[in-house]
Amino acid sequence: MKLNFKRNNGLIPAIIQDASTGKVLMLAYMNEDAWKASLSTGRATYFSRSRQKLWVKGETSGNIQLIKEAWIDCDNDTVLLRVEQVGGAACHKGYRSCFFRKIEGNSSKVIGEPVFDPGEVYKK
Amino acid sequence: MKLNFKRNNGLIPAIIQDASTGKVLMLAYMNEDAWKASLSTGRATYFSRSRQKLWVKGETSGNIQLIKEAWIDCDNDTVLLRVEQVGGAACHKGYRSCFFRKIEGNSSKVIGEPVFDPGEVYKK
Repeated sequence: MKLNFKRNNGLIPAIIQDASTGKVLMLAYMNEDAWKASLSTGRATYFSRSRQKLWVKGETSGNIQLIKEAWIDCDNDTVLLRVEQVGGAACHKGYRSCFFRKIEGNSSKVIGEPVFDPGEVYKK
Repeated sequence: MKLNFKRNNGLIPAIIQDASTGKVLMLAYMNEDAWKASLSTGRATYFSRSRQKLWVKGETSGNIQLIKEAWIDCDNDTVLLRVEQVGGAACHKGYRSCFFRKIEGNSSKVIGEPVFDPGEVYKK
């Protein structure tokens, strides 16, 4: 069970899926430390490319992700986490899933309503 | 609806999900040409990092992916395709999903049986 972190600058993509509904919630990146922290704590932990540091998902919003199952792909360079999404929303814009826009023709359409107001949750 | 291909050397990750079962099948990468080809043809088309060219999924095995829905994420740098997986298997190793190994403790366990024999499908 050795993941290959070398192919993409030390990062592998992690697909996050709601374990109860099957909804795909988001994609994030993990370095080796994030992967180890995720497995040892049971809380999804990523590497923030913008902040260049480990990021426990939900540390600000409270919407943490409890890992129910972890799967690795055939090439050992992508992981799939099936999680319990605390608070019901994974997206920093307040939606259940970061994939809240569906392609229709040449544009995209927002589907669904935000679960929380980002202005309230992330206020300074 | 403008995707951001600049963040990762011109490639964005695409999560592929079975539209009927909700099973996450695989992750692949798309450059802008692959994204346009996927939308215009309705067949999932990726960029092969190992072969450095466009790759119509299933062109060798016959297990093409018919796109039912395409979604984009909040940062415009990841896509989710919900597909009909022709032939029932997405993985080149013959399994329904590339995520056929589940983490259990410090190792991984294969879950499920292959749908096809890769030695037969990809023989020269």
